[in-house]
Amino acid sequence: MKWYLETGPEGDVVISSRVRVARNLAEYPFPSRMKPEQAKQVEEAAKKALLDSGDKLAEGFEFIDMSKLTPARAMSLAERHLISPDFAKKRGGALLLNNDESVSIMLNEEDHIRIQTLFAGQRLDEALALAGKIDDIFDRSLKYAFDENLGYLTQCPTNLGTGLRASLMLHLPATAASGAMPELVAAVSQLGIAIRGTYGEGSAALGAFYQISNQVTLGVSEKETVDSLSGIAAQIIAQERAARDAIGKSGPALEDRIWRSYAILKNARVLSGEEFMTLVSDLRLGVTMGIIDSVSLETINGLICQAQSATLMTSAGRNLDASDRDVLRANTVRGALA
Amino acid sequence: MKWYLETGPEGDVVISSRVRVARNLAEYPFPSRMKPEQAKQVEEAAKKALLDSGDKLAEGFEFIDMSKLTPARAMSLAERHLISPDFAKKRGGALLLNNDESVSIMLNEEDHIRIQTLFAGQRLDEALALAGKIDDIFDRSLKYAFDENLGYLTQCPTNLGTGLRASLMLHLPATAASGAMPELVAAVSQLGIAIRGTYGEGSAALGAFYQISNQVTLGVSEKETVDSLSGIAAQIIAQERAARDAIGKSGPALEDRIWRSYAILKNARVLSGEEFMTLVSDLRLGVTMGIIDSVSLETINGLICQAQSATLMTSAGRNLDASDRDVLRANTVRGALA
Repeated sequence: MKWYLETGPEGDVVISSRVRVARNLAEYPFPSRMKPEQAKQVEEAAKKALLDSGDKLAEGFEFIDMSKLTPARAMSLAERHLISPDFAKKRGGALLLNNDESVSIMLNEEDHIRIQTLFAGQRLDEALALAGKIDDIFDRSLKYAFDENLGYLTQCPTNLGTGLRASLMLHLPATAASGAMPELVAAVSQLGIAIRGTYGEGSAALGAFYQISNQVTLGVSEKETVDSLSGIAAQIIAQERAARDAIGKSGPALEDRIWRSYAILKNARVLSGEEFMTLVSDLRLGVTMGIIDSVSLETINGLICQAQSATLMTSAGRNLDASDRDVLRANTVRGALA
Repeated sequence: MKWYLETGPEGDVVISSRVRVARNLAEYPFPSRMKPEQAKQVEEAAKKALLDSGDKLAEGFEFIDMSKLTPARAMSLAERHLISPDFAKKRGGALLLNNDESVSIMLNEEDHIRIQTLFAGQRLDEALALAGKIDDIFDRSLKYAFDENLGYLTQCPTNLGTGLRASLMLHLPATAASGAMPELVAAVSQLGIAIRGTYGEGSAALGAFYQISNQVTLGVSEKETVDSLSGIAAQIIAQERAARDAIGKSGPALEDRIWRSYAILKNARVLSGEEFMTLVSDLRLGVTMGIIDSVSLETINGLICQAQSATLMTSAGRNLDASDRDVLRANTVRGALA
């Protein structure tokens, strides 16, 4: 089962947990300064290190030459958070992706190797443990760029040290509705934590889906990083639940909005991506609050991926203009909620 | 069966047909200049003339002293088009109303006697015939104010002559959407026909429900009046049907709007009167175009009456503030469409 078709611990608020570690090979320049043949060599070395390792964890991986994917298929990987949007657009590098899409390894994105693990719900510890095991597999046969004082060397200095970025995708509709987000963003940034929109840096928080992640990679251990993020997340989760209780008791307006959003999702014939995210956010809130019991969180989580533009086009097997895509999105959503 | 729970000829466009004749008694001043005891005498005389006539048509009438109704119950009669909104607010006069609400006779509204007949669909001829028969009953025992040259005398000179106002309630969503209404209003006014909002003069055309009626009462016969209105209505109906065909072929936007409106009506927990009229207009259009087949026009026609504010309060048996009324309206609509 793909991670995004599931739900996990604290699933009412936490959509998913993600850990990413950045690694580079000592004998090669960083990707931005590599020659094409060096890039090829790095990709081949990484592929071999994993697939020929004989490790049980290395089974079921596919090697994807990113330059051979259609733009829609590449962007669909980004929509499922398996690669970065920048990597999808770059049309170079390679990807190692396992069956259930819980491990995706970008080769020659910003760094030579970026190992990423993804789980539904609040499972940062598992995500970190799995990333560590994949890291160990590479470490056995590759020579990482590592400095005794600085730790892992990365192309961008903001990743120096652990090279670790841990993040949680949170659904905070009640916190957002209460107007408390700017305050929350300011407070956690003091603690070295960033809150961003759905697709990371610079993206909008459509439907009140937010990504929180650590900003510090130097001078802290991997475990400290994840524990700190989990601790802060626990407070945000508690605050969101309290805000949901409060709006749930404030008259019929919320219930009305949730039922309308659900009704539109089930009946619309044309649905833009933005409107979908807003409506599905209401639906998700309604399900977690027990207002709507005929839809599962798994269905919603899956739908959030399936209804993204490139993923829709990938399912359709062809490129679609915006208006045809909005019709297909509406059909897909109606089908999933029928 | 009440007329507004039915549908009739040309029911895709024509909600209802109405004929009203204004009559006054020769021996009394017009209502605005009457003394209270004279008003009482007129009401008693009219009541007696009808109820003691022995005519089969006079069976099943109720005599209602308007001053004894609650404001909500009085306004509910206006919402069902049985009396004028002004008469509902006046809290004086009386009403003779038959069982199926096809005949309502206002006593001491603007004139001493205003006979009104109402049918679902385009049935102006039947409405005129029935009004004529009721008129004959009164004429047998009362002495009407009548002038050989002017015809029936009425308080307002715009009703002199036949005292007849024939009207059709039309649903013109496609004509309205195409922007053709101002042109249509101008064209028919040249022909002595007015187009107004749902509740007559000065009211807005919520949900593209329009009332068309004759303006001329002098120098034309009753039959000419009704034939002329029916002829013009036939052209408006044809134009509306053509406009529906055209928008039906113009992509998924209309279908999308209709399904969304239906979905919101079936799921909202709070529904204002204005939003209801807009949404039910879309639903009605969807049913007449065959886009939605699970709701009947009869259900919709009935709902348009039942969901009006005063009628809601009358059903609830108590006064409600606007927000409670919007909740009750949503419940009533959900119940009717379930």
